[in-house]
Amino acid sequence: MQKSIRKIAITGGTHGNELTGVYLINKFKTDPSIVKRESFETIIMHTNKKAIEKCTRYIDNDLNRAFGESDLTDSAKSSYEDISAKLINQTLGPKGVESPNVDFIVDLHSTTSNMGLSVVIDNENELTWQVAAYLKEKEPKVNIFRWKGDTGDASFVHSVAQNGFAIEVGAIPQGVIRADLFFETEKLVHHILDFFEKLNLGEVEKKHGSIEIYDYVELVDFPRDENGNIIAMVHPNLQDNDYVSIKKGDPLFVTLNGETITYDKDEVVYALFINEAAYYEKGFAMCLTKKKMIELEG
Amino acid sequence: MQKSIRKIAITGGTHGNELTGVYLINKFKTDPSIVKRESFETIIMHTNKKAIEKCTRYIDNDLNRAFGESDLTDSAKSSYEDISAKLINQTLGPKGVESPNVDFIVDLHSTTSNMGLSVVIDNENELTWQVAAYLKEKEPKVNIFRWKGDTGDASFVHSVAQNGFAIEVGAIPQGVIRADLFFETEKLVHHILDFFEKLNLGEVEKKHGSIEIYDYVELVDFPRDENGNIIAMVHPNLQDNDYVSIKKGDPLFVTLNGETITYDKDEVVYALFINEAAYYEKGFAMCLTKKKMIELEG
Repeated sequence: MQKSIRKIAITGGTHGNELTGVYLINKFKTDPSIVKRESFETIIMHTNKKAIEKCTRYIDNDLNRAFGESDLTDSAKSSYEDISAKLINQTLGPKGVESPNVDFIVDLHSTTSNMGLSVVIDNENELTWQVAAYLKEKEPKVNIFRWKGDTGDASFVHSVAQNGFAIEVGAIPQGVIRADLFFETEKLVHHILDFFEKLNLGEVEKKHGSIEIYDYVELVDFPRDENGNIIAMVHPNLQDNDYVSIKKGDPLFVTLNGETITYDKDEVVYALFINEAAYYEKGFAMCLTKKKMIELEG
Repeated sequence: MQKSIRKIAITGGTHGNELTGVYLINKFKTDPSIVKRESFETIIMHTNKKAIEKCTRYIDNDLNRAFGESDLTDSAKSSYEDISAKLINQTLGPKGVESPNVDFIVDLHSTTSNMGLSVVIDNENELTWQVAAYLKEKEPKVNIFRWKGDTGDASFVHSVAQNGFAIEVGAIPQGVIRADLFFETEKLVHHILDFFEKLNLGEVEKKHGSIEIYDYVELVDFPRDENGNIIAMVHPNLQDNDYVSIKKGDPLFVTLNGETITYDKDEVVYALFINEAAYYEKGFAMCLTKKKMIELEG
Protein backbone atom coordinates (compact mmCIF):
# COMPACT_ATOMS: atom_id res chain seq x y z
CA MET A 1 0.00 0.00 0.00
CA GLN A 2 1.13 3.50 -0.86
CA LYS A 3 2.85 4.98 2.17
CA SER A 4 2.65 8.68 1.63
CA ILE A 5 -0.25 10.70 0.25
CA ARG A 6 0.54 14.11 -1.22
CA LYS A 7 -2.70 15.20 -2.83
CA ILE A 8 -6.25 14.01 -2.90
CA ALA A 9 -9.18 15.40 -4.87
CA ILE A 10 -12.82 15.73 -3.87
CA THR A 11 -14.91 16.27 -6.98
CA GLY A 12 -18.61 17.09 -7.34
CA GLY A 13 -21.06 18.03 -10.05
CA THR A 14 -19.77 15.45 -12.51
CA HIS A 15 -23.50 15.17 -13.13
CA GLY A 16 -24.73 18.75 -12.89
CA ASN A 17 -28.12 17.86 -11.43
CA GLU A 18 -26.73 15.83 -8.53
CA LEU A 19 -26.68 18.68 -6.08
CA THR A 20 -25.22 17.03 -2.99
CA GLY A 21 -21.74 17.08 -4.51
CA VAL A 22 -22.27 20.47 -6.12
CA TYR A 23 -23.17 22.10 -2.79
CA LEU A 24 -20.55 20.26 -0.76
CA ILE A 25 -17.92 21.66 -3.11
CA ASN A 26 -19.57 25.10 -2.74
CA LYS A 27 -19.28 24.75 1.02
CA PHE A 28 -15.63 23.65 0.87
CA LYS A 29 -14.77 26.47 -1.54
CA THR A 30 -16.31 29.01 0.82
CA ASP A 31 -14.28 27.63 3.72
CA PRO A 32 -11.35 25.48 2.53
CA SER A 33 -10.23 24.92 6.12
CA ILE A 34 -13.02 22.34 6.42
CA VAL A 35 -11.17 19.93 4.11
CA LYS A 36 -7.64 20.99 5.02
CA ARG A 37 -5.40 18.43 6.70
CA GLU A 38 -1.80 18.96 7.73
CA SER A 39 -0.02 16.20 5.88
CA PHE A 40 -1.44 16.47 2.36
CA GLU A 41 -3.18 18.86 -0.01
CA THR A 42 -6.91 18.58 -0.74
CA ILE A 43 -8.08 19.73 -4.15
CA ILE A 44 -11.78 20.50 -4.49
CA MET A 45 -13.32 20.77 -7.91
CA HIS A 46 -16.60 21.14 -9.76
CA THR A 47 -16.03 18.83 -12.70
CA ASN A 48 -18.91 19.67 -15.08
CA LYS A 49 -19.33 23.41 -14.74
CA LYS A 50 -21.75 24.01 -17.62
CA ALA A 51 -23.99 21.14 -16.59
CA ILE A 52 -24.05 22.50 -13.04
CA GLU A 53 -25.03 25.91 -14.35
CA LYS A 54 -27.90 24.39 -16.33
CA CYS A 55 -28.72 21.86 -13.58
CA THR A 56 -28.68 19.02 -16.06
CA ARG A 57 -26.84 15.68 -16.00
CA TYR A 58 -24.64 16.65 -18.91
CA ILE A 59 -24.42 19.02 -21.86
CA ASP A 60 -23.40 16.67 -24.70
CA ASN A 61 -22.60 13.29 -23.16
CA ASP A 62 -22.08 11.65 -19.77
CA LEU A 63 -18.84 13.04 -18.27
CA ASN A 64 -18.61 10.04 -16.00
CA ARG A 65 -18.22 7.77 -19.01
CA ALA A 66 -15.66 9.99 -20.77
CA PHE A 67 -12.44 8.89 -19.08
CA GLY A 68 -11.64 5.73 -20.99
CA GLU A 69 -8.04 5.56 -22.32
CA SER A 70 -9.29 5.98 -25.88
CA ASP A 71 -11.61 8.88 -24.95
CA LEU A 72 -8.72 10.83 -23.48
CA THR A 73 -6.36 10.28 -26.40
CA ASP A 74 -8.80 10.61 -29.32
CA SER A 75 -8.45 14.19 -30.57
CA ALA A 76 -11.65 13.82 -32.59
CA LYS A 77 -13.60 13.62 -29.36
CA SER A 78 -14.47 17.24 -28.82
CA SER A 79 -17.86 17.53 -27.11
CA TYR A 80 -18.09 19.73 -24.03
CA GLU A 81 -17.65 16.72 -21.76
CA ASP A 82 -14.89 15.21 -23.92
CA ILE A 83 -12.87 18.41 -23.59
CA SER A 84 -13.68 18.70 -19.88
CA ALA A 85 -12.47 15.12 -19.37
CA LYS A 86 -9.17 15.91 -21.07
CA LEU A 87 -8.66 19.01 -18.94
CA ILE A 88 -9.54 17.17 -15.73
CA ASN A 89 -7.13 14.43 -16.78
CA GLN A 90 -4.37 17.03 -17.13
CA THR A 91 -5.13 18.47 -13.70
CA LEU A 92 -5.73 15.31 -11.69
CA GLY A 93 -4.02 12.68 -13.83
CA PRO A 94 -2.73 11.94 -16.32
CA LYS A 95 -4.43 8.60 -16.34
CA GLY A 96 -2.30 5.49 -16.33
CA VAL A 97 1.00 6.96 -15.15
CA GLU A 98 2.54 5.62 -12.00
CA SER A 99 2.46 8.93 -10.21
CA PRO A 100 -0.45 11.10 -11.34
CA ASN A 101 -1.01 14.57 -9.89
CA VAL A 102 -3.38 13.28 -7.22
CA ASP A 103 -3.15 10.07 -5.27
CA PHE A 104 -6.85 9.53 -4.72
CA ILE A 105 -10.13 10.90 -6.13
CA VAL A 106 -13.49 10.83 -4.37
CA ASP A 107 -16.26 11.73 -6.83
CA LEU A 108 -19.54 12.74 -5.17
CA HIS A 109 -22.78 11.53 -6.74
CA SER A 110 -26.41 11.16 -5.80
CA THR A 111 -29.05 8.79 -7.11
CA THR A 112 -32.83 8.70 -7.25
CA SER A 113 -32.55 5.11 -6.02
CA ASN A 114 -32.77 4.37 -2.33
CA MET A 115 -29.07 3.47 -2.09
CA GLY A 116 -28.41 5.14 1.26
CA LEU A 117 -24.66 5.70 1.58
CA SER A 118 -22.87 3.67 -1.07
CA VAL A 119 -19.33 3.41 -2.34
CA VAL A 120 -18.92 2.34 -5.96
CA ILE A 121 -15.56 0.75 -6.71
CA ASP A 122 -14.33 -0.37 -10.09
CA ASN A 123 -10.64 -0.98 -9.44
CA GLU A 124 -8.71 -3.59 -7.52
CA ASN A 125 -6.08 -1.34 -6.01
CA GLU A 126 -5.16 -1.98 -2.44
CA LEU A 127 -5.34 1.60 -1.22
CA THR A 128 -8.86 2.04 -2.60
CA TRP A 129 -10.05 -1.01 -0.71
CA GLN A 130 -8.31 0.03 2.46
CA VAL A 131 -10.15 3.38 2.35
CA ALA A 132 -13.45 1.60 1.71
CA ALA A 133 -12.84 -0.79 4.61
CA TYR A 134 -12.04 2.14 6.91
CA LEU A 135 -15.21 3.94 5.81
CA LYS A 136 -17.35 0.89 6.47
CA GLU A 137 -15.77 0.49 9.89
CA LYS A 138 -16.57 4.12 10.76
CA GLU A 139 -20.05 4.06 9.20
CA PRO A 140 -21.31 0.48 9.16
CA LYS A 141 -24.38 1.45 7.12
CA VAL A 142 -22.14 2.21 4.15
CA ASN A 143 -22.55 -0.42 1.42
CA ILE A 144 -19.81 -1.26 -1.04
CA PHE A 145 -20.74 -1.99 -4.64
CA ARG A 146 -18.10 -3.40 -6.96
CA TRP A 147 -19.11 -2.40 -10.46
CA LYS A 148 -17.36 -3.41 -13.60
CA GLY A 149 -18.90 -0.38 -15.32
CA ASP A 150 -21.26 -0.31 -18.28
CA THR A 151 -18.74 0.72 -20.92
CA GLY A 152 -16.26 -2.15 -20.63
CA ASP A 153 -13.52 0.29 -19.65
CA ALA A 154 -12.69 2.27 -16.53
CA SER A 155 -14.21 5.52 -17.72
CA PHE A 156 -15.22 7.20 -14.49
CA VAL A 157 -13.79 10.51 -13.28
CA HIS A 158 -11.85 8.86 -10.46
CA SER A 159 -10.10 6.51 -12.89
CA VAL A 160 -7.57 9.23 -13.80
CA ALA A 161 -5.87 8.61 -10.46
CA GLN A 162 -4.53 5.20 -9.50
CA ASN A 163 -6.96 5.08 -6.62
CA GLY A 164 -10.42 6.39 -5.88
CA PHE A 165 -14.11 5.69 -5.98
CA ALA A 166 -17.52 7.28 -6.33
CA ILE A 167 -19.82 7.93 -3.42
CA GLU A 168 -23.49 7.50 -4.32
CA VAL A 169 -26.15 8.72 -1.90
CA GLY A 170 -29.89 8.47 -2.23
CA ALA A 171 -32.77 8.57 -2.62
CA ILE A 172 -32.46 12.13 -3.89
CA PRO A 173 -34.33 13.48 -6.94
CA GLN A 174 -32.25 15.14 -9.62
CA GLY A 175 -32.04 18.89 -9.04
CA VAL A 176 -32.66 18.61 -5.29
CA ILE A 177 -30.51 18.94 -2.15
CA ARG A 178 -31.61 16.94 0.87
CA ALA A 179 -30.09 18.23 4.11
CA ASP A 180 -29.97 14.84 5.84
CA LEU A 181 -27.94 13.18 3.09
CA PHE A 182 -25.87 16.33 2.54
CA PHE A 183 -24.51 16.14 6.09
CA GLU A 184 -24.10 12.37 5.96
CA THR A 185 -22.10 12.64 2.77
CA GLU A 186 -19.93 15.35 4.30
CA LYS A 187 -19.24 13.00 7.20
CA LEU A 188 -17.95 10.38 4.77
CA VAL A 189 -15.64 12.96 3.20
CA HIS A 190 -14.23 13.76 6.63
CA HIS A 191 -13.63 10.09 7.38
CA ILE A 192 -11.74 9.73 4.11
CA LEU A 193 -9.59 12.79 4.81
CA ASP A 194 -8.94 11.52 8.33
CA PHE A 195 -7.86 8.17 6.93
CA PHE A 196 -5.19 9.79 4.75
CA GLU A 197 -4.02 12.00 7.59
CA LYS A 198 -3.64 8.96 9.83
CA LEU A 199 -1.98 7.03 7.03
CA ASN A 200 0.64 9.75 6.55
CA LEU A 201 1.21 9.94 10.29
CA GLY A 202 1.56 6.18 10.52
CA GLU A 203 -1.52 5.96 12.72
CA VAL A 204 -3.62 3.73 10.56
CA GLU A 205 -3.24 0.00 10.54
CA LYS A 206 -3.60 -1.91 7.35
CA LYS A 207 -6.79 -3.95 7.51
CA HIS A 208 -6.73 -7.68 6.91
CA GLY A 209 -9.50 -10.18 6.70
CA SER A 210 -12.65 -9.91 4.64
CA ILE A 211 -15.19 -7.26 3.79
CA GLU A 212 -18.78 -7.57 2.59
CA ILE A 213 -19.50 -6.25 -0.87
CA TYR A 214 -22.23 -6.35 -3.49
CA ASP A 215 -20.67 -7.64 -6.66
CA TYR A 216 -21.94 -6.84 -10.16
CA VAL A 217 -23.95 -9.61 -11.86
CA GLU A 218 -25.98 -8.00 -14.64
CA LEU A 219 -27.96 -4.97 -15.75
CA VAL A 220 -31.70 -5.47 -16.25
CA ASP A 221 -33.63 -3.22 -18.61
CA PHE A 222 -37.28 -2.24 -18.36
CA PRO A 223 -39.62 -4.41 -20.41
CA ARG A 224 -40.16 -2.48 -23.66
CA ASP A 225 -42.34 -2.79 -26.76
CA GLU A 226 -40.98 -3.24 -30.27
CA ASN A 227 -40.43 0.53 -30.55
CA GLY A 228 -38.39 0.68 -27.38
CA ASN A 229 -41.13 2.23 -25.26
CA ILE A 230 -41.16 1.20 -21.62
CA ILE A 231 -44.26 -0.93 -20.93
CA ALA A 232 -43.63 -1.93 -17.33
CA MET A 233 -42.52 -0.14 -14.18
CA VAL A 234 -40.43 -1.26 -11.22
CA HIS A 235 -42.78 -3.26 -9.01
CA PRO A 236 -43.90 -1.49 -5.82
CA ASN A 237 -42.48 -4.35 -3.72
CA LEU A 238 -39.03 -3.71 -5.20
CA GLN A 239 -39.15 0.12 -5.40
CA ASP A 240 -36.95 1.68 -2.68
CA ASN A 241 -35.64 -1.76 -1.70
CA ASP A 242 -32.08 -1.49 -2.96
CA TYR A 243 -29.79 -3.99 -1.17
CA VAL A 244 -32.75 -6.26 -0.26
CA SER A 245 -32.56 -9.90 -1.40
CA ILE A 246 -34.53 -11.07 -4.43
CA LYS A 247 -35.24 -14.73 -4.98
CA LYS A 248 -36.94 -16.68 -7.74
CA GLY A 249 -40.59 -15.69 -8.06
CA ASP A 250 -40.21 -12.25 -6.46
CA PRO A 251 -41.78 -9.40 -8.44
CA LEU A 252 -39.45 -7.17 -10.49
CA PHE A 253 -41.85 -5.20 -12.68
CA VAL A 254 -45.53 -4.45 -13.12
CA THR A 255 -46.85 -3.59 -16.57
CA LEU A 256 -48.84 -0.41 -17.15
CA ASN A 257 -51.86 -2.73 -17.16
CA GLY A 258 -51.08 -4.20 -13.78
CA GLU A 259 -49.51 -7.57 -14.62
CA THR A 260 -46.58 -8.65 -12.47
CA ILE A 261 -43.28 -9.82 -13.97
CA THR A 262 -41.15 -11.90 -11.63
CA TYR A 263 -37.48 -12.75 -11.23
CA ASP A 264 -37.01 -16.22 -12.68
CA LYS A 265 -33.47 -17.31 -11.87
CA ASP A 266 -32.34 -19.54 -9.03
CA GLU A 267 -29.53 -17.37 -7.73
CA VAL A 268 -30.45 -14.97 -4.93
CA VAL A 269 -29.54 -11.42 -5.98
CA TYR A 270 -29.67 -7.89 -4.63
CA ALA A 271 -30.81 -5.03 -6.87
CA LEU A 272 -29.04 -1.67 -6.83
CA PHE A 273 -29.75 1.55 -8.69
CA ILE A 274 -33.41 0.52 -8.73
CA ASN A 275 -35.36 2.97 -10.91
CA GLU A 276 -32.51 5.49 -11.18
CA ALA A 277 -33.75 8.33 -13.40
CA ALA A 278 -30.52 8.73 -15.35
CA TYR A 279 -30.47 5.08 -16.40
CA TYR A 280 -33.76 5.07 -18.33
CA GLU A 281 -31.86 6.36 -21.36
CA LYS A 282 -28.97 3.98 -20.77
CA GLY A 283 -31.46 1.12 -20.91
CA PHE A 284 -31.46 -0.30 -17.45
CA ALA A 285 -33.95 -0.35 -14.63
CA MET A 286 -31.62 -1.84 -12.03
CA CYS A 287 -28.31 -3.60 -11.52
CA LEU A 288 -28.39 -7.07 -10.02
CA THR A 289 -25.58 -8.02 -7.66
CA LYS A 290 -24.43 -10.89 -5.47
CA LYS A 291 -23.52 -10.35 -1.86
CA LYS A 292 -20.10 -11.77 -1.04
CA MET A 293 -17.16 -11.46 1.29
CA ILE A 294 -13.86 -10.60 -0.35
CA GLU A 295 -10.43 -10.79 1.17
CA LEU A 296 -8.49 -7.61 1.72
CA GLU A 297 -4.92 -7.91 0.50
CA GLY A 298 -2.15 -8.39 2.91
CA MET B 1 -73.54 24.20 -12.87
CA GLN B 2 -73.11 23.10 -16.46
CA LYS B 3 -75.64 20.36 -17.13
CA SER B 4 -74.20 18.53 -20.11
CA ILE B 5 -70.61 17.62 -20.79
CA ARG B 6 -69.61 16.91 -24.39
CA LYS B 7 -65.84 16.64 -24.26
CA ILE B 8 -63.19 16.43 -21.64
CA ALA B 9 -59.42 16.33 -22.05
CA ILE B 10 -56.82 14.40 -20.07
CA THR B 11 -53.40 15.89 -20.74
CA GLY B 12 -49.96 14.68 -19.68
CA GLY B 13 -46.34 15.53 -20.30
CA THR B 14 -46.85 19.26 -19.99
CA HIS B 15 -43.54 18.90 -18.20
CA GLY B 16 -41.71 16.27 -20.20
CA ASN B 17 -39.85 14.79 -17.22
CA GLU B 18 -43.00 14.16 -15.15
CA LEU B 19 -43.50 10.62 -16.33
CA THR B 20 -46.69 9.65 -14.51
CA GLY B 21 -48.78 11.70 -16.92
CA VAL B 22 -46.63 10.77 -19.91
CA TYR B 23 -47.11 7.04 -19.30
CA LEU B 24 -50.79 7.28 -18.36
CA ILE B 25 -51.41 8.94 -21.72
CA ASN B 26 -49.32 6.18 -23.36
CA LYS B 27 -51.54 3.60 -21.66
CA PHE B 28 -54.76 5.35 -22.70
CA LYS B 29 -53.54 5.74 -26.28
CA THR B 30 -52.75 2.03 -26.46
CA ASP B 31 -56.25 1.18 -25.22
CA PRO B 32 -58.63 4.15 -25.53
CA SER B 33 -61.50 2.06 -24.16
CA ILE B 34 -60.03 2.62 -20.68
CA VAL B 35 -61.06 6.29 -20.75
CA LYS B 36 -64.14 5.93 -22.92
CA ARG B 37 -67.51 6.77 -21.40
CA GLU B 38 -70.87 6.63 -23.17
CA SER B 39 -72.14 10.15 -22.72
CA PHE B 40 -69.13 12.27 -23.70
CA GLU B 41 -65.90 12.20 -25.63
CA THR B 42 -62.52 11.91 -23.87
CA ILE B 43 -59.53 13.51 -25.58
CA ILE B 44 -56.10 12.31 -24.48
CA MET B 45 -53.04 14.34 -25.33
CA HIS B 46 -49.32 14.65 -24.74
CA THR B 47 -48.94 18.40 -24.52
CA ASN B 48 -45.16 18.95 -24.70
CA LYS B 49 -43.96 16.36 -27.21
CA LYS B 50 -40.39 17.56 -27.66
CA ALA B 51 -39.82 17.87 -23.93
CA ILE B 52 -41.18 14.34 -23.44
CA GLU B 53 -38.79 13.06 -26.09
CA LYS B 54 -35.86 14.72 -24.32
CA CYS B 55 -37.21 13.89 -20.84
CA THR B 56 -36.78 17.48 -19.74
CA ARG B 57 -39.23 19.88 -18.10
CA TYR B 58 -39.34 22.13 -21.16
CA ILE B 59 -37.41 23.03 -24.30
CA ASP B 60 -37.46 26.85 -24.21
CA ASN B 61 -39.79 27.89 -21.39
CA ASP B 62 -42.35 26.42 -18.99
CA LEU B 63 -45.39 25.33 -21.04
CA ASN B 64 -47.51 25.43 -17.91
CA ARG B 65 -46.93 29.17 -17.65
CA ALA B 66 -47.57 29.89 -21.35
CA PHE B 67 -51.37 30.10 -21.44
CA GLY B 68 -51.92 33.66 -20.24
CA GLU B 69 -54.27 35.72 -22.44
CA SER B 70 -51.36 37.84 -23.61
CA ASP B 71 -49.12 34.80 -24.28
CA LEU B 72 -51.72 33.30 -26.59
CA THR B 73 -52.36 36.47 -28.57
CA ASP B 74 -48.82 37.84 -28.82
CA SER B 75 -47.52 36.77 -32.24
CA ALA B 76 -43.96 37.67 -31.20
CA LYS B 77 -44.03 34.81 -28.72
CA SER B 78 -42.59 32.02 -30.81
CA SER B 79 -40.59 29.64 -28.63
CA TYR B 80 -41.34 25.94 -28.91
CA GLU B 81 -43.64 26.11 -25.90
CA ASP B 82 -45.25 29.38 -27.01
CA ILE B 83 -46.21 27.77 -30.31
CA SER B 84 -47.32 24.58 -28.58
CA ALA B 85 -49.55 26.61 -26.26
CA LYS B 86 -51.20 28.33 -29.21
CA LEU B 87 -51.85 25.00 -30.94
CA ILE B 88 -53.22 23.43 -27.75
CA ASN B 89 -55.41 26.49 -27.31
CA GLN B 90 -56.83 25.95 -30.81
CA THR B 91 -57.53 22.29 -30.10
CA LEU B 92 -58.87 22.47 -26.56
CA GLY B 93 -59.95 26.12 -26.30
CA PRO B 94 -59.96 28.79 -27.41
CA LYS B 95 -59.43 30.34 -24.04
CA GLY B 96 -62.01 32.76 -22.74
CA VAL B 97 -64.94 31.86 -24.98
CA GLU B 98 -68.14 30.66 -23.38
CA SER B 99 -68.09 27.34 -25.13
CA PRO B 100 -64.54 26.13 -25.83
CA ASN B 101 -63.88 22.81 -27.58
CA VAL B 102 -63.59 20.93 -24.32
CA ASP B 103 -65.62 21.42 -21.16
CA PHE B 104 -62.98 20.31 -18.69
CA ILE B 105 -59.21 19.69 -18.68
CA VAL B 106 -57.32 17.50 -16.21
CA ASP B 107 -53.58 18.10 -16.54
CA LEU B 108 -51.42 15.36 -15.00
CA HIS B 109 -48.29 16.40 -13.12
CA SER B 110 -45.87 14.95 -10.63
CA THR B 111 -43.67 16.63 -8.06
CA THR B 112 -40.51 15.78 -6.17
CA SER B 113 -42.32 17.05 -3.05
CA ASN B 114 -44.18 14.61 -0.85
CA MET B 115 -47.58 15.97 -1.92
CA GLY B 116 -49.35 12.60 -2.10
CA LEU B 117 -52.45 13.04 -4.28
CA SER B 118 -53.15 16.73 -4.73
CA VAL B 119 -55.52 18.78 -6.83
CA VAL B 120 -54.33 22.29 -7.73
CA ILE B 121 -57.15 24.70 -8.51
CA ASP B 122 -56.79 28.26 -9.69
CA ASN B 123 -60.31 29.13 -10.77
CA GLU B 124 -63.56 29.73 -8.93
CA ASN B 125 -65.87 27.95 -11.34
CA GLU B 126 -68.60 25.87 -9.81
CA LEU B 127 -68.10 22.76 -11.96
CA THR B 128 -64.38 22.61 -11.12
CA TRP B 129 -65.15 22.67 -7.42
CA GLN B 130 -67.91 20.08 -7.73
CA VAL B 131 -65.44 17.70 -9.42
CA ALA B 132 -62.87 18.37 -6.69
CA ALA B 133 -65.47 17.75 -3.98
CA TYR B 134 -66.49 14.48 -5.64
CA LEU B 135 -62.85 13.40 -5.89
CA LYS B 136 -62.23 14.13 -2.23
CA GLU B 137 -65.35 12.19 -1.28
CA LYS B 138 -64.14 9.17 -3.27
CA GLU B 139 -60.52 9.46 -2.15
CA PRO B 140 -60.40 11.27 1.19
CA LYS B 141 -56.62 11.42 1.14
CA VAL B 142 -56.76 13.83 -1.80
CA ASN B 143 -55.76 17.35 -0.74
CA ILE B 144 -57.01 20.45 -2.50
CA PHE B 145 -54.65 23.37 -2.97
CA ARG B 146 -56.04 26.67 -4.19
CA TRP B 147 -53.21 28.47 -5.90
CA LYS B 148 -53.34 31.91 -7.35
CA GLY B 149 -50.41 31.02 -9.57
CA ASP B 150 -46.99 32.59 -9.67
CA THR B 151 -47.46 34.66 -12.82
CA GLY B 152 -50.42 36.80 -11.75
CA ASP B 153 -52.50 35.35 -14.57
CA ALA B 154 -54.21 32.01 -15.21
CA SER B 155 -51.49 30.62 -17.42
CA PHE B 156 -51.81 26.88 -16.82
CA VAL B 157 -52.71 24.38 -19.55
CA HIS B 158 -56.16 23.74 -18.09
CA SER B 159 -57.01 27.44 -18.20
CA VAL B 160 -57.92 27.20 -21.90
CA ALA B 161 -61.18 25.49 -20.89
CA GLN B 162 -63.65 27.14 -18.54
CA ASN B 163 -63.13 24.36 -16.05
CA GLY B 164 -60.30 22.10 -15.00
CA PHE B 165 -57.39 21.60 -12.68
CA ALA B 166 -53.98 20.02 -12.34
CA ILE B 167 -53.35 16.81 -10.47
CA GLU B 168 -50.00 16.77 -8.67
CA VAL B 169 -48.68 13.50 -7.27
CA GLY B 170 -45.51 12.91 -5.33
CA ALA B 171 -42.91 12.36 -4.16
CA ILE B 172 -41.56 11.30 -7.56
CA PRO B 173 -38.16 12.30 -8.91
CA GLN B 174 -38.09 13.90 -12.33
CA GLY B 175 -37.56 11.32 -15.03
CA VAL B 176 -38.99 8.47 -12.94
CA ILE B 177 -42.24 6.46 -12.97
CA ARG B 178 -43.38 5.05 -9.65
CA ALA B 179 -45.88 2.23 -10.03
CA ASP B 180 -47.76 2.96 -6.80
CA LEU B 181 -48.51 6.58 -7.70
CA PHE B 182 -49.10 5.68 -11.35
CA PHE B 183 -52.03 3.46 -10.41
CA GLU B 184 -53.33 5.90 -7.79
CA THR B 185 -53.31 8.71 -10.34
CA GLU B 186 -55.13 6.52 -12.83
CA LYS B 187 -57.79 5.89 -10.19
CA LEU B 188 -58.34 9.64 -9.85
CA VAL B 189 -58.77 9.92 -13.63
CA HIS B 190 -61.43 7.21 -13.49
CA HIS B 191 -63.29 8.98 -10.68
CA ILE B 192 -63.30 12.18 -12.72
CA LEU B 193 -64.61 10.42 -15.82
CA ASP B 194 -67.24 8.66 -13.70
CA PHE B 195 -68.32 12.00 -12.28
CA PHE B 196 -69.00 13.40 -15.76
CA GLU B 197 -70.82 10.26 -16.83
CA LYS B 198 -73.06 10.46 -13.76
CA LEU B 199 -73.56 14.18 -14.30
CA ASN B 200 -74.73 13.63 -17.86
CA LEU B 201 -77.04 10.84 -16.74
CA GLY B 202 -78.46 12.99 -13.97
CA GLU B 203 -77.08 10.63 -11.35
CA VAL B 204 -74.82 13.01 -9.50
CA GLU B 205 -76.14 15.34 -6.85
CA LYS B 206 -74.76 18.80 -6.56
CA LYS B 207 -72.74 19.04 -3.38
CA HIS B 208 -73.49 21.71 -0.81
CA GLY B 209 -71.75 22.59 2.38
CA SER B 210 -68.07 23.16 2.86
CA ILE B 211 -64.83 21.57 1.78
CA GLU B 212 -61.36 21.70 3.29
CA ILE B 213 -58.68 23.36 1.21
CA TYR B 214 -55.15 24.68 1.54
CA ASP B 215 -55.20 28.29 0.44
CA TYR B 216 -52.20 30.11 -0.99
CA VAL B 217 -50.42 32.50 1.41
CA GLU B 218 -46.94 33.11 0.04
CA LEU B 219 -43.95 31.65 -1.74
CA VAL B 220 -40.74 31.31 0.29
CA ASP B 221 -37.37 31.26 -1.44
CA PHE B 222 -34.22 29.51 -0.26
CA PRO B 223 -31.84 31.72 1.71
CA ARG B 224 -29.27 32.92 -0.83
CA ASP B 225 -26.01 34.88 -0.82
CA GLU B 226 -25.51 38.18 -2.62
CA ASN B 227 -24.81 36.32 -5.88
CA GLY B 228 -28.04 34.36 -5.70
CA ASN B 229 -26.41 31.09 -4.63
CA ILE B 230 -28.47 28.93 -2.30
CA ILE B 231 -26.84 28.83 1.15
CA ALA B 232 -29.42 26.85 3.11
CA MET B 233 -31.43 23.69 2.51
CA VAL B 234 -34.92 22.67 3.55
CA HIS B 235 -34.63 21.55 7.17
CA PRO B 236 -34.82 17.77 7.71
CA ASN B 237 -37.81 18.27 10.05
CA LEU B 238 -39.74 19.92 7.23
CA GLN B 239 -38.51 17.78 4.31
CA ASP B 240 -41.27 15.37 3.13
CA ASN B 241 -43.77 17.02 5.50
CA ASP B 242 -45.99 18.76 2.99
CA TYR B 243 -49.43 19.50 4.51
CA VAL B 244 -48.06 19.37 8.08
CA SER B 245 -48.63 22.44 10.28
CA ILE B 246 -45.81 24.90 10.90
CA LYS B 247 -45.92 27.29 13.81
CA LYS B 248 -43.67 30.10 14.99
CA GLY B 249 -40.23 28.78 15.91
CA ASP B 250 -40.43 25.63 13.77
CA PRO B 251 -37.38 25.03 11.56
CA LEU B 252 -37.68 25.89 7.87
CA PHE B 253 -34.09 25.74 6.65
CA VAL B 254 -30.64 24.64 7.71
CA THR B 255 -27.59 26.40 6.30
CA LEU B 256 -24.81 24.43 4.63
CA ASN B 257 -22.92 25.01 7.89
CA GLY B 258 -25.66 23.53 10.03
CA GLU B 259 -27.44 26.60 11.45
CA THR B 260 -31.22 26.37 11.71
CA ILE B 261 -33.50 29.08 10.32
CA THR B 262 -36.98 29.11 11.82
CA TYR B 263 -40.44 30.28 10.81
CA ASP B 264 -41.03 33.57 12.59
CA LYS B 265 -44.65 34.55 12.00
CA ASP B 266 -47.58 34.00 14.33
CA GLU B 267 -49.97 32.48 11.82
CA VAL B 268 -49.97 28.68 11.60
CA VAL B 269 -49.24 27.62 8.02
CA TYR B 270 -48.85 24.46 5.96
CA ALA B 271 -46.04 24.18 3.43
CA LEU B 272 -46.62 22.62 0.01
CA PHE B 273 -44.25 21.92 -2.86
CA ILE B 274 -41.49 21.60 -0.27
CA ASN B 275 -38.13 21.28 -2.06
CA GLU B 276 -39.68 20.75 -5.53
CA ALA B 277 -36.79 20.43 -7.99
CA ALA B 278 -38.38 22.54 -10.71
CA TYR B 279 -38.87 25.51 -8.41
CA TYR B 280 -35.21 26.10 -7.56
CA GLU B 281 -34.90 28.15 -10.75
CA LYS B 282 -38.22 29.90 -10.14
CA GLY B 283 -36.87 31.04 -6.79
CA PHE B 284 -38.95 29.23 -4.24
CA ALA B 285 -38.32 26.45 -1.79
CA MET B 286 -41.94 25.98 -0.75
CA CYS B 287 -45.38 27.53 -0.86
CA LEU B 288 -47.00 28.42 2.46
CA THR B 289 -50.75 27.96 2.76
CA LYS B 290 -53.56 28.29 5.28
CA LYS B 291 -55.97 25.47 5.93
CA LYS B 292 -59.57 26.60 5.65
CA MET B 293 -63.08 25.45 4.92
CA ILE B 294 -64.74 27.06 1.94
CA GLU B 295 -68.39 26.92 0.99
CA LEU B 296 -69.41 25.16 -2.18
CA GLU B 297 -71.83 27.26 -4.21
CA GLY B 298 -75.55 26.55 -4.15
